[in-house]
Amino acid sequence: MAAAGAQEQAGAKSPDLVVMKFGGTSVAGAEEIKRAAGRIVAAREQGTSVVAVLSARGSTTDELVEMAREVAERPDPREMDMLLSTGERISCALCAMAIVELGHKAISLTGSQAGIVTDSSHTKARIIDVRADRIRDALGQDSIVLVAGFQGVSTDSRDVTTLGRGGSDTTAVALAAALGGEVCEIYTDVRGVYSADPRIVPEARKLPVVSYEEMLEMAASGAKVLQLRSVEYARNHGVQIHCRSSSEDGPGTLVVSEQETLERPLVTAVTHSTDEARVTLTGVRDEPGVAGRILRALADANVNVDMIIQNEPVSTDGGADLSFTIESNDLPAALDALKKIQVSDGVETDEHTGKVSIVGAGMRSHPGVAAKVFETLGGQGINIEMISTSPIKISCVIAADRVSDAVKALHQAFELGEGAIRKEEPAGDEHRPTVAG
Amino acid sequence: MAAAGAQEQAGAKSPDLVVMKFGGTSVAGAEEIKRAAGRIVAAREQGTSVVAVLSARGSTTDELVEMAREVAERPDPREMDMLLSTGERISCALCAMAIVELGHKAISLTGSQAGIVTDSSHTKARIIDVRADRIRDALGQDSIVLVAGFQGVSTDSRDVTTLGRGGSDTTAVALAAALGGEVCEIYTDVRGVYSADPRIVPEARKLPVVSYEEMLEMAASGAKVLQLRSVEYARNHGVQIHCRSSSEDGPGTLVVSEQETLERPLVTAVTHSTDEARVTLTGVRDEPGVAGRILRALADANVNVDMIIQNEPVSTDGGADLSFTIESNDLPAALDALKKIQVSDGVETDEHTGKVSIVGAGMRSHPGVAAKVFETLGGQGINIEMISTSPIKISCVIAADRVSDAVKALHQAFELGEGAIRKEEPAGDEHRPTVAG
Repeated sequence: MAAAGAQEQAGAKSPDLVVMKFGGTSVAGAEEIKRAAGRIVAAREQGTSVVAVLSARGSTTDELVEMAREVAERPDPREMDMLLSTGERISCALCAMAIVELGHKAISLTGSQAGIVTDSSHTKARIIDVRADRIRDALGQDSIVLVAGFQGVSTDSRDVTTLGRGGSDTTAVALAAALGGEVCEIYTDVRGVYSADPRIVPEARKLPVVSYEEMLEMAASGAKVLQLRSVEYARNHGVQIHCRSSSEDGPGTLVVSEQETLERPLVTAVTHSTDEARVTLTGVRDEPGVAGRILRALADANVNVDMIIQNEPVSTDGGADLSFTIESNDLPAALDALKKIQVSDGVETDEHTGKVSIVGAGMRSHPGVAAKVFETLGGQGINIEMISTSPIKISCVIAADRVSDAVKALHQAFELGEGAIRKEEPAGDEHRPTVAG
Repeated sequence: MAAAGAQEQAGAKSPDLVVMKFGGTSVAGAEEIKRAAGRIVAAREQGTSVVAVLSARGSTTDELVEMAREVAERPDPREMDMLLSTGERISCALCAMAIVELGHKAISLTGSQAGIVTDSSHTKARIIDVRADRIRDALGQDSIVLVAGFQGVSTDSRDVTTLGRGGSDTTAVALAAALGGEVCEIYTDVRGVYSADPRIVPEARKLPVVSYEEMLEMAASGAKVLQLRSVEYARNHGVQIHCRSSSEDGPGTLVVSEQETLERPLVTAVTHSTDEARVTLTGVRDEPGVAGRILRALADANVNVDMIIQNEPVSTDGGADLSFTIESNDLPAALDALKKIQVSDGVETDEHTGKVSIVGAGMRSHPGVAAKVFETLGGQGINIEMISTSPIKISCVIAADRVSDAVKALHQAFELGEGAIRKEEPAGDEHRPTVAG
């Protein structure tokens, strides 16, 4: 089996330690917490040291954000982090109690206590160091260690910081890297990474293995199963991620380096997103460096720009149009930032924009893929507004209400479904049948 | 007015700093938090530095305790503290946001960040040091400082600790002492300290001033308005407490040293409690030091014993009966501790016990007070099961279902109601009329 094969190929990391991460739905209530505790204890009883990273329970983070909005229109970011970091602490304390109840030693640590050191970029902080001495001490005393995900402490001001949505994945991968864990197990409410969102495409198949590069493109283009930054961190530190179900046994999806994937499908998955906003600046000033100023202003406001298109060449009379896409959530901050620099005649926004993407490491040597994407969408009467490509990805911005149709059509066109015959690289058109599972 | 008079007499503490504490009902929802933020900002705008200590919102702590019980029969105390400490952090972060929204600088600090250093007695920790450098720095930068009440950090293991129910009062007083604040303002859902619980005695009057000693006895005998330990701390460090309403203006009750009280009423207040449990050990072994062993076992289990009575003298044949009262919550821990030492034939418990007490600094020189208490209760047909006295307090253990009757009868017998003429000490029977207010 591909998953086991890849695991056996793993490097010289410690097989005596596993880092397990449980997401919000996996610790949502008392029953889920006890089930997670049971899984953790089962791993410990096989002789491995266990560090478990937990997210906030269910909708806790959303509730806290809502509370903040009730008391302040623009909640102070430092205080937002102080507020939001409580959710994961609650999960960890409860899970530690459940483990102690099962007769094992357990200790919960905040991000700060666990040595997760970050920069000071509140609500979107980056991990800059992991000082895991306290975790090592606790493991040495035969304790299971629960770590509050999503949070750290800033070097300069010793303030609580948070890593942004999905940040617990990054906490888990960072700890696996720092502690020399062979694999970081991410437990979630889905069985793994799929060839498309199964809610849209019921015949989507679970992928046994994907490469870091594919997973990065998938995360960047809408797959919500893993946070983008956690995949980057895993790739940079050679940590395997095993993304699997918290309620079922059996293997999930392994995220590994490309040489470990064995399979090289032409297209691996279709991903999508409907929370994109498009901003168009009309009549952008014809000055040197103006695009740089725009992107600098957005970066300073912590807005991630996805696609950028300059619609017309800069002319001497009126200036060009510049369009870009961002996350819908970032729209107010982006508009604020643009207002300050005043480099265009007007600003138009479209909040109802979607994006569909296909990702696959095999695309690199198959230039016909893009044409097939455009033909497929065209056949559905779907208008493509913007296009962006990488060697292993093609993304199209389309109307939000056509995203489902686009995902279904592309999934079928590239034959990604359960039981599909997958194409392999390298060397031309050799076919190797691989049954999914 | 007595309150203002007492305040003017205060010592050489800094008038430039006020510590304000807001209880759970005063930060229960968004509206309450904004109102507290408004009060804090109003104090700041008068030129004082402000440190505000906040409790967890409304029923948060109860909800967290309930969660813990769902995952573990006996929640681990260290993890319980990690869990419970989140409630106050949420309040503080939200209030800081609300203050920033009002245009002032504000920063929230956890107990640990605020330098509240405690022993390691989880769920009932004691403050052993206050290292308030970080608060001073923030005040020096013109910031309002919000401190999460009820919590600290243990010296030895750097773990989060909590101070027990009502511990936020102690946090506030300890910070006032460490920072040299003249007065610690405790904002609550009542207008001050009353001559009896107004829910039982509608004509109970608000006391303008009480002494530390009286307040200690009142807190120990059931008055819930201030935590016992906070009053001890205030007395030991010479911090005035001003207990007042968070929803209304006007003075509340000042808790000050006895020489500042001006009035010396014979009896100041009637207090009561219905969450007492009585434990009777029958046939206690006739060995030297056996009572000491019992109390040591209870102390080690962190059980506070209130009254103790040895019903019969130790005889050579059977041993004596020893009864004591504790908080109902502590009953399981007490029975566990007693099981381990095995010093009696049997253990009987009564969970439905109540206590009624009268407290007053003027009692010291009036031996007739006790007789009047017993006559009053006797006149109501209330059976007194146990009695304990101090120079300024008389407590009687009675059936829980007679507590209301006892409080009403004693309040009337000692004429403590609104508009009452209060007696003054020293020097015999001089009478000075004082209108309550």
